[in-house]
Amino acid sequence: MRVYTFGNGAAEGHARMVDVLGGKGAGLAGMALLGVPVPPGFTIPVEVCAAFHTTGALPDPLWAEILRGIKHIEDLRGERFGDADRPLLVSVRSGAAVSMPGMMDTVLDVGLNSATRAGLAQRMSRPRSALDSHRRFIEMYAEVALELDPELLAEVRDEHLELLGLRDVAQLDEAGLAGLLAAWERRLAEEGAVLPTAPLDQLRGAIEGVLRSWNSRRAVRFRREHGIPDEPGTAVTVQCMVFGNLGADSATGVAFTRDPNTGDPTLFGEFLPDAQGEDVVSGAYTPEPLTALAARQPAAYAEIEQIARTLEEALGAVQDLEFTIERGRVWMLQTRSAQQSARAEVRTAVEMAEAGLITQDQALSRVRPERLTRLLHPSVDVADRRRVVARGLPASPGAVTGRVVFDPDEVVRRATAGEAVILVRVETSTEDMDAIRVATGVLTSRGGMTSHAALVARGLGRTCVTGCADVVVDERGQVIKAQGGRLTIEAGAWITLDGGTGEVILGRAATTPAAPPATYGTLMDWADQRRRLAIMASADNGTEAREAFAQGADGVGLCRTEHMFLGPDRLALVRELVFAFGEAARRRVLERILPVQREDFASLLAVTGARPVAIRLLDIPLHEIVPESPEDVERLASRLNAPVGTIQQRITRLRANNPLLGHRGCRLGLTFPEVYAVQIRALFEAVLAAEVPPAVQVVVPLLSCGEELRRLRRRVDHMVRTVAAERGAPVPAYTLGAMVETPRACLVAGELAEAADFFLFGANDLTRATFLLARDDASRFLPFYLEHDVLPADPFVALDEAGVGELIRLAIARGRAVRPDLRCGLSGAQTGAPATVAFCHRVGMDFLTCPMHRVPVARLAAAQAAVLGDLEGTA
Amino acid sequence: MRVYTFGNGAAEGHARMVDVLGGKGAGLAGMALLGVPVPPGFTIPVEVCAAFHTTGALPDPLWAEILRGIKHIEDLRGERFGDADRPLLVSVRSGAAVSMPGMMDTVLDVGLNSATRAGLAQRMSRPRSALDSHRRFIEMYAEVALELDPELLAEVRDEHLELLGLRDVAQLDEAGLAGLLAAWERRLAEEGAVLPTAPLDQLRGAIEGVLRSWNSRRAVRFRREHGIPDEPGTAVTVQCMVFGNLGADSATGVAFTRDPNTGDPTLFGEFLPDAQGEDVVSGAYTPEPLTALAARQPAAYAEIEQIARTLEEALGAVQDLEFTIERGRVWMLQTRSAQQSARAEVRTAVEMAEAGLITQDQALSRVRPERLTRLLHPSVDVADRRRVVARGLPASPGAVTGRVVFDPDEVVRRATAGEAVILVRVETSTEDMDAIRVATGVLTSRGGMTSHAALVARGLGRTCVTGCADVVVDERGQVIKAQGGRLTIEAGAWITLDGGTGEVILGRAATTPAAPPATYGTLMDWADQRRRLAIMASADNGTEAREAFAQGADGVGLCRTEHMFLGPDRLALVRELVFAFGEAARRRVLERILPVQREDFASLLAVTGARPVAIRLLDIPLHEIVPESPEDVERLASRLNAPVGTIQQRITRLRANNPLLGHRGCRLGLTFPEVYAVQIRALFEAVLAAEVPPAVQVVVPLLSCGEELRRLRRRVDHMVRTVAAERGAPVPAYTLGAMVETPRACLVAGELAEAADFFLFGANDLTRATFLLARDDASRFLPFYLEHDVLPADPFVALDEAGVGELIRLAIARGRAVRPDLRCGLSGAQTGAPATVAFCHRVGMDFLTCPMHRVPVARLAAAQAAVLGDLEGTA
Repeated sequence: MRVYTFGNGAAEGHARMVDVLGGKGAGLAGMALLGVPVPPGFTIPVEVCAAFHTTGALPDPLWAEILRGIKHIEDLRGERFGDADRPLLVSVRSGAAVSMPGMMDTVLDVGLNSATRAGLAQRMSRPRSALDSHRRFIEMYAEVALELDPELLAEVRDEHLELLGLRDVAQLDEAGLAGLLAAWERRLAEEGAVLPTAPLDQLRGAIEGVLRSWNSRRAVRFRREHGIPDEPGTAVTVQCMVFGNLGADSATGVAFTRDPNTGDPTLFGEFLPDAQGEDVVSGAYTPEPLTALAARQPAAYAEIEQIARTLEEALGAVQDLEFTIERGRVWMLQTRSAQQSARAEVRTAVEMAEAGLITQDQALSRVRPERLTRLLHPSVDVADRRRVVARGLPASPGAVTGRVVFDPDEVVRRATAGEAVILVRVETSTEDMDAIRVATGVLTSRGGMTSHAALVARGLGRTCVTGCADVVVDERGQVIKAQGGRLTIEAGAWITLDGGTGEVILGRAATTPAAPPATYGTLMDWADQRRRLAIMASADNGTEAREAFAQGADGVGLCRTEHMFLGPDRLALVRELVFAFGEAARRRVLERILPVQREDFASLLAVTGARPVAIRLLDIPLHEIVPESPEDVERLASRLNAPVGTIQQRITRLRANNPLLGHRGCRLGLTFPEVYAVQIRALFEAVLAAEVPPAVQVVVPLLSCGEELRRLRRRVDHMVRTVAAERGAPVPAYTLGAMVETPRACLVAGELAEAADFFLFGANDLTRATFLLARDDASRFLPFYLEHDVLPADPFVALDEAGVGELIRLAIARGRAVRPDLRCGLSGAQTGAPATVAFCHRVGMDFLTCPMHRVPVARLAAAQAAVLGDLEGTA
Repeated sequence: MRVYTFGNGAAEGHARMVDVLGGKGAGLAGMALLGVPVPPGFTIPVEVCAAFHTTGALPDPLWAEILRGIKHIEDLRGERFGDADRPLLVSVRSGAAVSMPGMMDTVLDVGLNSATRAGLAQRMSRPRSALDSHRRFIEMYAEVALELDPELLAEVRDEHLELLGLRDVAQLDEAGLAGLLAAWERRLAEEGAVLPTAPLDQLRGAIEGVLRSWNSRRAVRFRREHGIPDEPGTAVTVQCMVFGNLGADSATGVAFTRDPNTGDPTLFGEFLPDAQGEDVVSGAYTPEPLTALAARQPAAYAEIEQIARTLEEALGAVQDLEFTIERGRVWMLQTRSAQQSARAEVRTAVEMAEAGLITQDQALSRVRPERLTRLLHPSVDVADRRRVVARGLPASPGAVTGRVVFDPDEVVRRATAGEAVILVRVETSTEDMDAIRVATGVLTSRGGMTSHAALVARGLGRTCVTGCADVVVDERGQVIKAQGGRLTIEAGAWITLDGGTGEVILGRAATTPAAPPATYGTLMDWADQRRRLAIMASADNGTEAREAFAQGADGVGLCRTEHMFLGPDRLALVRELVFAFGEAARRRVLERILPVQREDFASLLAVTGARPVAIRLLDIPLHEIVPESPEDVERLASRLNAPVGTIQQRITRLRANNPLLGHRGCRLGLTFPEVYAVQIRALFEAVLAAEVPPAVQVVVPLLSCGEELRRLRRRVDHMVRTVAAERGAPVPAYTLGAMVETPRACLVAGELAEAADFFLFGANDLTRATFLLARDDASRFLPFYLEHDVLPADPFVALDEAGVGELIRLAIARGRAVRPDLRCGLSGAQTGAPATVAFCHRVGMDFLTCPMHRVPVARLAAAQAAVLGDLEGTA
């Protein structure tokens, strides 16, 4: 076991030893090697932490190393630990490989006792500052090393201040501070607590305390919440103290190598003259912008600017720095990669690549795809996120504010009158279409990313949060209950929705408009050149397709023809189709549907042009189509010339069934052949009438065996030839794809591949089937599962690779064994998750079909997957 | 291409050439080789059929072979084709490898024209008989070879009879027959139809006609219905005609080598003296029992008896024979394996094995497992099956007759008054418990083998047919509509149910009581020694367990604890549990449940003793537990001290969800830990109180990842230790099994195997998930799928091997890779299907758990699988 010293242009470790030295230690070693002035010190490596927690003590051989480290500091600093004239003081800080800001403890000013304090006062020429340092040391040491309740010293302090009629320790003069220290000494003695005076004893206590803080309750909770493993632990860095509070030529501050909000490539930050580091974050003083430092201490500012450039070049990323100026001399205390806004992240990545600081591949990997959403849609300002009261699914992006209204009719009335209203429902149905159309936003407590509300809202570009299981929507009681019932939101209250994050915020929050930086286009061009996966969008009509292409989609990967029927006028037709008795009645309805469908397809094909467009044959979600109101039931009965009782019986039966498990998709298509016949006729009549020959793909839903597809392929072929012959036109080219969305389809993929030109995996149904779990029902136990690590992630948000992914891998292998050129792609809400995009790349898919507004995310994620694949030599 | 001659103790083929010669041809060759007297003839092999249907004509090289065959007959018979003095007549019959009785055509008396008829009359000494033979020939030839509508000749015949004032051709004298033939000749000439007179022309026409009949509409339909492939086709046998109608020393008849009803090992059959073969089946004459032949023609009878013994010994199976006695000489026309009653099948198999005619393995393979049900439960007599009006699922065996009643209250009233009533419902719910209890039988149009009605009826031993999608039950209209609405069965009408076959019969059908023969026990002992699979039964209480052991089950393979709550008193408790708000309320309900559950377990363990008994933790079918009536809702609300509105809201929510996909099984167990805690406590308190230490297995339902099982295993372990400690008893042994019933569980079987002692695959849920299909919904399209060969079988009746079976194979492999000694078994309604039992054996399972009344079927099927496995060298 050893320690790693650094300082004076040399270091025993280096910047890439993050796993050994922690982030802080590795950063200091790196800076030292680059010749950046850092206060000398040494780092106790991460491995010591586990050893310490096993035995409860520092390993003996380590102590000699620590003494070596202290000697190293003493030599470089020309001060000595415990020396009354030139006393050395050190800081003892934690530093894990993964940043856990503020979660672990720190002890500053180790080495102070009454003797060394006098020497320090002398050197500082400020006796009060030395006393104040001693006060901080005692406070920190008592809590961290002695594990005393901070209240113990706080009580004494508050009594002391009260006696003097003061409010804050900053107001204490020299005598007041000395009195406080004396009062503390008495109190500690009463408690039987011994605060060591020998500096080496102090050092040992501080190191052990910092190591202990790795397992403090708040640190453990933080790791749980952020998915950070408990092993291996934290490193400890012991470093010479430097002082920014020694006069007008001293200061302390933080700096970013570029503006973290805008990405502007100039030094950005703030500082406090004549102050110590913790004063900057304490909030007790108002720091000044760094530009003021340039005026006040131009040499120091220039040095910091130079250091920033050096570090950014060497580390290849924007840095977040801490510095102290001690009597005109600059010391860098920390460097780490900066947290940036989405805007800045994109701009910086592109500009650094263009400047040759990083490669294009590195630039692509720097930007988190998820964050593009923030750039491309309005979002709620960071400050206002504090008022988030619930989180649902980010069903349709945007940030909107409005009044809570539960009744759809009221929404229509008030919205038409110009009010901003948010429609709040348990879930929506086709009856709510008008309300969704005019509402400012939509919030539902149930339903997934592909629920009715989500689909309609996305189609209309309306901001929407669905499946918000954190709240209970009481439509009758006209109230939302949140935070386990502790918070009640009445009808008429203002709320804000962020459809990009799924957040629900109380009140009228400030929002930032969509504003991608100029460099966004460059980055996405690079991504498009780099990615191997084609990124297609779901789009159910021409308007959506146009928007999808604007987002950079390569084509329409899924047009769900059933969604063409969600409008109230169309809905009546589909209801009649579902409830029609007998083939003849169905045919009559279908005759009315034919021209409508043809027109739908024609307007879609006019937008897609020569781009690929995949049309999925009808897969009616029967339960969404059943009429709710008595008037609708009566209207339907009269249209079909059937008794209301019969219709009612039928409705009860449809409801009682398992809408997701039954007579759907191709099962319906095979048993009621006239339905698909009309669809295919409408489609190919539109194809033959199109100006540009379309690249049409027909997709067959809900397959579970090869014979289903073989039969339907024959029927499609036959209808296409029939339509072409009627028009005297050559038979148009098209391809036929299998929707692989039942586990059985995966297992018999070889059979399917014989009749399919491509596979489109349906992640929603596959997930449902693989888990035997519907999205809505999942909300009742999935939060528990995720919190307790029973499952690593919500399988409806990111594809479950161990289960669903395994079926997909198997299906690709079996399909390509039969047809080596079989194209494979994935659809479903999960395709918007970068991890799922990476999965698609890894398993050799050719494309994916994602929700329209996730297209940019998927494009970038696909490029990152390609970069990573090349790095790992797997793709 | 060649033909295969036979006759006079020699044959060019042999008995095992069924694929070449068809069943009839192979039987004749076999008999000839055994020295049994068969009229000489030859067989045109099966391969000719495909060639004929390709070109539409007989292949040329074949004709020479046919002539060789005719020569062979002529030589042996001493007659000549077309000879006016000693004319040879032949029959031309079809004969496929698989029997298709009555489906294809036959032409008799080929070779007759006016010239040969005179010679025949001479030889017969009966001019009328010769004319009658000519009449039959013309009738058959016109239809089969000339493809004329039979009505053409029938019209002429009826006019002719009417002129003579007669009703039947049998009443025509010589002149009358001659007149009919002349009238036919005129009619055929008018039609331009030419009936060839040259015998060889007749022969060619007859052979081609018989080959054509392979593709007749009724033959094709029969093959569809019986799953017989269209290839390769039928053989054709041309055989010398012999005559049983030449006087008192002639006869024709059929014989079984043993009584096909009882299995009694004596010759059994009937005959007609002085008659031709077709007269026996025509129904115009009443045949006499064979015993009469023994008296009348003792020598011939003795010869037939000897032939029967020879054939049975040589072929190792009971034979169904056709014979003709021509002037004292016995000719055998056909031999084939006999169709026997279930009783006879069992008795014959055992007695033949005991007599050394066949091996025990052969005896086991002879009995169709499915048929044991007929022996062990009352069944509807074969004759009355003709009135079958619908078929449902054989949910609970037995045969009962009663009046149709739709209203459960009326069922209770009338049944209590002593009437036999059948409860007829769309499906039953817990509210119908009392009615099911007192009804004679239960019929539902929906619901599977594990629906509420099926479970309750089986538990009570009540005959039940479920999922009868052939009928529409109109509960309001008090009427059953069957046969597509053409048949209406009113309330109060008599119907008969066969719960062993699923048949619904109109009226009061005769039933046969359960009566296994004495040899049944022997056969089942052999089966138990032979099988490798353990056969466990589902049993939810002591009564069912006792019955299961009586059926020969090796143990209780699944006790579904949720079924313990189906009684009305218990139901109230479970409802309170489901609807209880908060943990405290749930705990109060659970405290009342604890003693009840403990008592349930104690009475079950008292029956199971040291036999294995697998207890599955609660998997509440929420949708079955929701209260229906307003009174029940109010009662529940008052018990829980909650507003009725709140309960109603909850009910609506539970109904709206997907009951099969949600918060069920271990998901509920993990999030509401107190539920399983009470169950496990109750179980192990009962275990510690049991007299014999029970072999308890705890089964965890609806797993989808390893962590679920690991957590629950810890909880079970902890509770078992707690209970033992409380009692001061040693910790009882138990094993823990994983219910593998989601596709994901199959895919992550390795993870599960780390925490599981055994896997119990759940075929019901696995099928549902693999197809994304619920049993009830399947009835709307599965019939179409089965009829059109989209799927080979109903996956809810026999396990789908290509899909579900593939997942199971994968899971066994992955599980055993981690734990090589992992025991695996299958549960679900499908386990009752012999094909599924064979699948379990093949994939290396250790046991299966089947419905109680299917235990004997499974025991025998398991033995057959073992026999087959040894034959194929795979097990």
